Amino acid sequence: MFPYRPGFTPCGCYYSPYCQGGWLWRYGATEPADSSRLPHQQRLTFVLVHGSWADAHFWDGVAAALRSKGHIVHTPEYAGHGKDPNKDVTHAMITKSVVDYITRLNLHDIILVGHSFGGSVIQKVAEQVPDRIRRLVFWDAFVLKDGESVADELPPQTRQGFEQLRAVSGNDTIMLPFPLFRDLFVNTATLEVAKRMYAGVAPEPAKPLFEKLDLKAFYALTTPRSYVYFYQDNVLPQGEGFGWNPHMSTRLGQFRLIVGDGDHMTDTITRPAILAQKIYEAGRD
Amino acid sequence: MFPYRPGFTPCGCYYSPYCQGGWLWRYGATEPADSSRLPHQQRLTFVLVHGSWADAHFWDGVAAALRSKGHIVHTPEYAGHGKDPNKDVTHAMITKSVVDYITRLNLHDIILVGHSFGGSVIQKVAEQVPDRIRRLVFWDAFVLKDGESVADELPPQTRQGFEQLRAVSGNDTIMLPFPLFRDLFVNTATLEVAKRMYAGVAPEPAKPLFEKLDLKAFYALTTPRSYVYFYQDNVLPQGEGFGWNPHMSTRLGQFRLIVGDGDHMTDTITRPAILAQKIYEAGRD
Amino acid sequence: MFPYRPGFTPCGCYYSPYCQGGWLWRYGATEPADSSRLPHQQRLTFVLVHGSWADAHFWDGVAAALRSKGHIVHTPEYAGHGKDPNKDVTHAMITKSVVDYITRLNLHDIILVGHSFGGSVIQKVAEQVPDRIRRLVFWDAFVLKDGESVADELPPQTRQGFEQLRAVSGNDTIMLPFPLFRDLFVNTATLEVAKRMYAGVAPEPAKPLFEKLDLKAFYALTTPRSYVYFYQDNVLPQGEGFGWNPHMSTRLGQFRLIVGDGDHMTDTITRPAILAQKIYEAGRD
Repeated sequence: MFPYRPGFTPCGCYYSPYCQGGWLWRYGATEPADSSRLPHQQRLTFVLVHGSWADAHFWDGVAAALRSKGHIVHTPEYAGHGKDPNKDVTHAMITKSVVDYITRLNLHDIILVGHSFGGSVIQKVAEQVPDRIRRLVFWDAFVLKDGESVADELPPQTRQGFEQLRAVSGNDTIMLPFPLFRDLFVNTATLEVAKRMYAGVAPEPAKPLFEKLDLKAFYALTTPRSYVYFYQDNVLPQGEGFGWNPHMSTRLGQFRLIVGDGDHMTDTITRPAILAQKIYEAGRD
Repeated sequence: MFPYRPGFTPCGCYYSPYCQGGWLWRYGATEPADSSRLPHQQRLTFVLVHGSWADAHFWDGVAAALRSKGHIVHTPEYAGHGKDPNKDVTHAMITKSVVDYITRLNLHDIILVGHSFGGSVIQKVAEQVPDRIRRLVFWDAFVLKDGESVADELPPQTRQGFEQLRAVSGNDTIMLPFPLFRDLFVNTATLEVAKRMYAGVAPEPAKPLFEKLDLKAFYALTTPRSYVYFYQDNVLPQGEGFGWNPHMSTRLGQFRLIVGDGDHMTDTITRPAILAQKIYEAGRD
Repeated sequence: MFPYRPGFTPCGCYYSPYCQGGWLWRYGATEPADSSRLPHQQRLTFVLVHGSWADAHFWDGVAAALRSKGHIVHTPEYAGHGKDPNKDVTHAMITKSVVDYITRLNLHDIILVGHSFGGSVIQKVAEQVPDRIRRLVFWDAFVLKDGESVADELPPQTRQGFEQLRAVSGNDTIMLPFPLFRDLFVNTATLEVAKRMYAGVAPEPAKPLFEKLDLKAFYALTTPRSYVYFYQDNVLPQGEGFGWNPHMSTRLGQFRLIVGDGDHMTDTITRPAILAQKIYEAGRD
């Protein structure tokens, strides 16, 4: 269920569309000059948790950019995603994937980053390994209220669309139609980049999106937290009772806000260094 | 009523203040090097529909920038505006101007762009020639609900101000006082640019702003649509139940969002290439 | 109570942490080449009013940047702040400091700028010397309703936190804990800059933050007004019934909006020229 191997390099991958073609960052894993690296005391350990319709390779470019600055970066892949053939998973199984990864490698003092659906995952992971976490970073990520599901934060029209896609899937998954992916998830991309990214999108296990989560323990935590908001992200409408920031971000209480000009996914491919810098600004002390 | 001639160049104009003085883009109509052009399959046909207190010359700089990339650009002028001496027009007459333009030139596969009041126009145009439209693009433009008027989307104070200006006009028009134009429509401009732009502002026929529109057919359309939002645009307050995005944009259902840092009008003069790029990002497949 | 001396240069200061170390702008007071100066008719007279947990040196970098363009800049320090040892002050005493400064120097035609708490100060100052003010500029500043206190605009959690800090102070002040200052006030800064800036933070007199202000006279004024909003400012949540813009800015009625990408305080140190430019764009005719 959890086949991700630490140290796996982007160029070694054999199935992800993100590794086909001549992406600039594909060769970014070569060691950069030391001069671009941060002093040792400013280097951090990041654990990057991807969202729905993604796998660990979602982070390839960002991870390479962070590593080039001297940071340690882990990109655990979780149940029901990537190399896991089993799509019949629960939110708890997904959380367990990440918790097991962190405990197996005995990681401490980590900056735990969640993107999109991954926000709900790091909320649950934080409940289980709070002492290992230095700071939580949500990047356009769900911050659920106690008792909520991810689906509860979708506008009625989107939720209804997802329920229809789920119903017709035959295996309790949701596959994004290309026009929806193109206009909502990678709106700033060229059509070419959008198509390449879409080639890596697999049907998403539906159940975890609709599970109500008990988050009482999360809301008792005092772990420092940050929110990275990209203002061209339109997966959710930003306002009128919905959206990443401030609608869900303010549930974090006192949090550090960092804002960028990207959308939900495109910058992982087109501007990974800028995205990495924003995540660093959110994660540093 | 509709004297706009296709092929009319910015430099040939004889009355618009936008063509007086040494605007850089005035000479932008000369053919640029082919190297800056997009491949043929990425070239689009734009129909740009201006808003209130404007005419077809509003788009001169943007049209030149788009044409320099290889796109075909049309900028129809509509009833009650520009060279039309008759200010006693209806919203239907305005819509007819644009529909007639499109059908007369037998345009197909168009990217139909509306700015400000022009948003309500392209909503009605789309109802009449849906098969000719590839995508709708709203740039800080009204997206009215069925049965609404443009005035219904103004905050009470603005609406009241417009009603007073209408009452004193003597000919059922609304003329913007310079301080209002300068602070709300061209807030990022220098005073010099603001004055030059204001010199081109003519009294706006009031009636179309207050007409309630039947938009049932519009809301049955499935034409792809985008919204370009410029975050220094303060013609309407952005939030608290008013504004371009997300208040009106979300009425489009699934739409592509593109965000820029300009205001309501200034960039047409000072940064037409950047504005053109944003419109292109909204309009492309 | 009001020891600020006009003409005091940043480099002459002897106690402010902003003047320790090698800040680039420290030496920015030397006269720049005339070529960078604005024509005489575009030079303005600014009066910059700082907020809480700050003193007149808050503006050192911005003032130097504005002066280098040819503007006249005043940065009055008010009761209970900076060199004033007395922390037992009222909002009226603070207002009087600024009013006295303006009348003593017989300033006219001023651009009166308020930051944060300073917004509530310039509201009251404007009531007393309206004829001396050319334009009001609020930069991420409180615009209170008649009868409100600054504390009334804080989200419940923040207000409760401030009340607790006030209770434990022993001298009716509020001192910001470093983690709160770092994440809410200087969120985009490096840790090093955050620490340097925090070294200059003194306990803030609590009473003026909780005083209800009579602002009927302010809301009868027709002085032109602008709002500068920095979108990474998260001292207040931006939406859901709170925040700088549009929640409080729209109380100004017709106002000019200028938006920047900074946070609440950091740019005064790291990008004073950019901040100065935004304030100039808000203040010019």
